[in-house]
Amino acid sequence: MPETVAGPDLQPRLQAWRGRADAALERALFSLRHGEPRLLAAMRYAVLPGGKRIRPLLVYASGHAFGAADDVLDAPAAAVELIHAYSLVHDDLPAMDDDALRRGRPTLHVAFDEATAILAGDALQALAFSVLAESPVDNGRRVAMLRELAGAAGADGMCGGQARDLAATGKKRGQSHFLDREPEATRHLPPKNDSDPFSSFPPADLERLHAMKTGALLRAAVRLGAIAAGADASARMHLDRYAAALGLGFQIRDDLLDIEGDSATLGKTAGKDAAQAKATFPAVLGVEASRRRLAELDDEMTGALDALGAGSFAPLRHLGRQAIERSH
Amino acid sequence: MPETVAGPDLQPRLQAWRGRADAALERALFSLRHGEPRLLAAMRYAVLPGGKRIRPLLVYASGHAFGAADDVLDAPAAAVELIHAYSLVHDDLPAMDDDALRRGRPTLHVAFDEATAILAGDALQALAFSVLAESPVDNGRRVAMLRELAGAAGADGMCGGQARDLAATGKKRGQSHFLDREPEATRHLPPKNDSDPFSSFPPADLERLHAMKTGALLRAAVRLGAIAAGADASARMHLDRYAAALGLGFQIRDDLLDIEGDSATLGKTAGKDAAQAKATFPAVLGVEASRRRLAELDDEMTGALDALGAGSFAPLRHLGRQAIERSH
Repeated sequence: MPETVAGPDLQPRLQAWRGRADAALERALFSLRHGEPRLLAAMRYAVLPGGKRIRPLLVYASGHAFGAADDVLDAPAAAVELIHAYSLVHDDLPAMDDDALRRGRPTLHVAFDEATAILAGDALQALAFSVLAESPVDNGRRVAMLRELAGAAGADGMCGGQARDLAATGKKRGQSHFLDREPEATRHLPPKNDSDPFSSFPPADLERLHAMKTGALLRAAVRLGAIAAGADASARMHLDRYAAALGLGFQIRDDLLDIEGDSATLGKTAGKDAAQAKATFPAVLGVEASRRRLAELDDEMTGALDALGAGSFAPLRHLGRQAIERSH
Repeated sequence: MPETVAGPDLQPRLQAWRGRADAALERALFSLRHGEPRLLAAMRYAVLPGGKRIRPLLVYASGHAFGAADDVLDAPAAAVELIHAYSLVHDDLPAMDDDALRRGRPTLHVAFDEATAILAGDALQALAFSVLAESPVDNGRRVAMLRELAGAAGADGMCGGQARDLAATGKKRGQSHFLDREPEATRHLPPKNDSDPFSSFPPADLERLHAMKTGALLRAAVRLGAIAAGADASARMHLDRYAAALGLGFQIRDDLLDIEGDSATLGKTAGKDAAQAKATFPAVLGVEASRRRLAELDDEMTGALDALGAGSFAPLRHLGRQAIERSH
C-alpha cells in the first residue's frame, strides 16, 4: 500500500477494522445452531480466512468519516462480505465461471461438492440479511440498510451484472460448458485484430455491466457505512460519485491484473478472461486506454471526496487509491 | 378441496387472495428495471404462473385472523413465495435433485440453462428481502418480518434442512450424480426389508430435517401474517404449534403422494424419492404409521387453533386440512 496516501497511523487502523470484520463474520457463523455440519463447514470455508476485505473496510471507512462508532459498523461490514463471499462461491461453479482456484485454495465446489456449494451460497446470502436485521441501530436505519443491500445484490445489481457478463462472453448457452471452452491461452493478452469479437462492443455497455456486477456491492458498502452513521442526502450523493468511480476502477484494475499478473500472486487463475473470451476493459478499450480511464477515475474519486469538505476521509482516499493501484 | 371444511364463502376468498399474491409478485418483478432480459425472463418463469400458492395463502389467512387488511399482507405474501420459488429452482439443479419436470413444465435449468437458473434463484432470494423492506407497515414490523424470513430461509432453516436431506440420501458426494443414480424404479413403494438403508434412521431426525426443509418457510408464512397484523406473543405461540404441525403434515402428505400419485396429477416426477433412495416418512415409518401421524397432526392443528379462542380461523383450518388431504 502506498505510504504517500496512507499516513503512518492508517495501516494499524485498517488492520484493526479487518480484525473487527473477521470477528463479526465469526460471530455470524457461530450464531447458526441447527445447520448441517457439512453446510456450516462449507460456509466457514467460503468466508474464513478472507481476502482483502475491501468491502468491510469501505463500510468502516465511510461510517467513520461521518462519525459512526466502530461497533455500529460491524453488522453492515459482515453483511456485505457475506454477500460477496456467496457470489464468489456461485460464480466459481462449473455452470458459471468453472474455476478451481480462489484465494490460493481449491474453490468450494472442488473442496466440498457442487450441491453443498450451491446451498452454502444460498445460506450465506440469507445470513447477510439476518446479520443486518440485528444491527445496533434504530429500525429506520436497519430497514434502509436492508433495502440497500437487497437492491445491490439482486437482479438490478450484482446478479444482473453477472447475467450481463455471461451474455457478453463467447459462451454458448444451453450447451455443455466443456464443449465450447477454448483451449487454455498460452499468453494472456486478448486478441486485438479484425476477428476480435469485442471490437464493436460499446465501452458504455461494459461500464454499465461492471457498475452492476462489481460496482453495486462496492457502492452498497460505502452507502451502508453512511446510512449507519446517519449521513445526510447531500453527503451520500458525493459518496455515490466516489463509490461509482472506485467500483469501476477496481474492475479495470482486475482486468489488467488478469493480463499482467501471475496465478501465484493473484491467488486465482491468471489469463482466464482471454481464455474464456470474456468482455474485459483491455479487450474492449485496449490496454493503454484502460490505464488512462483508471487515471480519470482516480481524479473523480479525489474530486468527490474534496466536495465533502473537511472530514476524516483519509481511509476512503487510501482505499480508493489502493483499488486502482493494487498488484493482486 | 373438501367443502366440509371450506364454507361456501371461503373458496372465493382464497381465490381472491391467490389473485392478490400473483399481482404482488408481478409488481415485484416489474419493479426490476436494469436486469438482463434473459435473467428477468427466467425469474418470471420461476414465479408465474404459480403453484398452489400455499405460503401466500397462509400469510393472508394468518394476518386476516388477527385483523390485518389485505394490502398490508401483499408484501410478505409475495416475499415468502419468492423464497419458495428460488428454492425450487436450485433444488431442481443437476447437482441437487436433478429434476426435469416441475408444475408440469420443464424445470428452469432445462428451459434456460444452468447458469441462468443459479443466478435467477439468487436474484429471487434478494428480491424477497427487497419486497419485504417496502411493506406498508412501520419499521419495527418490517425488521421483525425481515428477521423472520432470513432466519427461515438460511442455514438454520430451509437451506440447513436441504443440506440434511442431501446428507441423509444414498447420494454419494463428490461423484458424478449420473454415475451413482439408481435405475428408475418401476414401482414406487420404497423397500421395507433387511437391506433398507433407513430401517435404523430415527423418525425424530426425519421430523427435524423436514421441520427445517419445508417446515421453516411454512411457519414463517404464518408468522409473517401475524407480525404484519401485530398479533401478541401468546397468540404467536399457538400459531407456531399450528404451523409446525401443518409443515410436518404437508411433508408427510408429499411423501405419500410420491408413492401413490402419478406424474400427470402431481405435475412432477412421481416415484422419484424411492428411485433416489431419499429418506422419506413412508420409508422410515412405513405407510400406515405415516398415515396415523397425519391424523395426529390434524388433531394438533385443531387444538392449536381452538386455543386461540374465537376468531376468523376458518381459512387457517381449511389450509391445514388441505395440506394433509391434498391429492397433488
